[in-house]
Amino acid sequence: MNLQFTAHTAADGVLTRSFALGEVTGVLWSPVDTTARTPLVLLGHGGGRDSKAAPMVGRAHRLVPEGFSVFCIDAPGHGGRPRTADDDREIAAMQHAMATGEPVGPIVVRYNLDLADRALPEWQAVLDALQELPELTDVPVGYFGLNMGTAIGIPLIAADPRITAAVLGIFWYDDQLAKLAAQITVPLEYLLQWDDQHIPRESSLALFDAFASPDKSLHANAGAHKEVPRFEFESAVRFLIRHLRPA
Amino acid sequence: MNLQFTAHTAADGVLTRSFALGEVTGVLWSPVDTTARTPLVLLGHGGGRDSKAAPMVGRAHRLVPEGFSVFCIDAPGHGGRPRTADDDREIAAMQHAMATGEPVGPIVVRYNLDLADRALPEWQAVLDALQELPELTDVPVGYFGLNMGTAIGIPLIAADPRITAAVLGIFWYDDQLAKLAAQITVPLEYLLQWDDQHIPRESSLALFDAFASPDKSLHANAGAHKEVPRFEFESAVRFLIRHLRPA
Repeated sequence: MNLQFTAHTAADGVLTRSFALGEVTGVLWSPVDTTARTPLVLLGHGGGRDSKAAPMVGRAHRLVPEGFSVFCIDAPGHGGRPRTADDDREIAAMQHAMATGEPVGPIVVRYNLDLADRALPEWQAVLDALQELPELTDVPVGYFGLNMGTAIGIPLIAADPRITAAVLGIFWYDDQLAKLAAQITVPLEYLLQWDDQHIPRESSLALFDAFASPDKSLHANAGAHKEVPRFEFESAVRFLIRHLRPA
Repeated sequence: MNLQFTAHTAADGVLTRSFALGEVTGVLWSPVDTTARTPLVLLGHGGGRDSKAAPMVGRAHRLVPEGFSVFCIDAPGHGGRPRTADDDREIAAMQHAMATGEPVGPIVVRYNLDLADRALPEWQAVLDALQELPELTDVPVGYFGLNMGTAIGIPLIAADPRITAAVLGIFWYDDQLAKLAAQITVPLEYLLQWDDQHIPRESSLALFDAFASPDKSLHANAGAHKEVPRFEFESAVRFLIRHLRPA
């Protein structure tokens, strides 16, 4: 099974290529000079979003001019990929909890960990395929994903030694995730929202605490679940530069 | 009582001037072009250190080329200023606790809050005097101080509306400090060490929580009390630029 580029555009020095590997779809952003070797950043999108969502495009367009290539794949059931009956049931359960004000956390955790199981071999297969491109063979690899991007990122980083730095955050403590986090030792920048209306503060702090990384930093910002400040995005870029593109 | 410059040197575009205001001594760092109006950063030094300590000189030499003036004053009993019998007793008590492995926190908190009471009018008098210089009249003012620099900074920032942004951290929760923190509403970047052997994690988190600032960020880094990572210093510089030197 080969990775196929299905469309491409170039603007502002960024080449944007949609791709498919079997039923898995995604986007690769890179310098227009495709012979340039660059570190590679994997972007994990949030729940209900996809590889073409504005935050993914914005992060990619900020990272490529800094000398990175970047890719994002659509999670199962996201970005036009088919949903199973289970997907439909879990999405309905989340929407019901949000509408009635019941805690959404337990449903999000259960559903996102299921998605992570399904997504993990997809991320590894796409990474395998992209690293066959000469400009991406054996380059340093990092991961950047919040919310569902963290639920998928933790198992992926624990499983794949190619990923050597990560920006994660905005997720609930869970015993299974904590066990995987305890296997992760790469440098980590971790975000939480201090006044998150969905994720209890203690839950966030406990998940951060679980990572074994000797070099880990928690950035906790005042504000609600969706109010991650813009300057954290700049901080993430500097973190990725520091660890993947050493001077 | 007038502020007197007692010595000056210039190197690498930084003019360093020692000063005295009565018995209060300190250092002002500024661009060599003293007609340039710049925002002003107050540096609070740590316990047992002074205005000439390497971290103060390093921060000043990083900030001045970014378009700031910077000053630090020696805390009472520090930097060659006379010690009282109380100072001697508290310092001996801290040294004894460190040597025997007893908790040093209660002594540090008690002594540093006493120093803060004595230092507060000194900081305000020096700020008054420096703002009479034409290049520093009515410029934006920020504060950057960890450890004892936070014990002094919290009462100072609560008392002085001229200070509009602050980098603080590495200190114990205390009811009196928390009451003052609850009066502080300026943008705040706050540091704690996740594995601090002296300050319990819950104590640090509770003090951060006490600040009323709508724009506050906690940076918690893996590592022991004295292992604040170098990149936090760069983050503090960016924070001060963002708030005191808007584009």
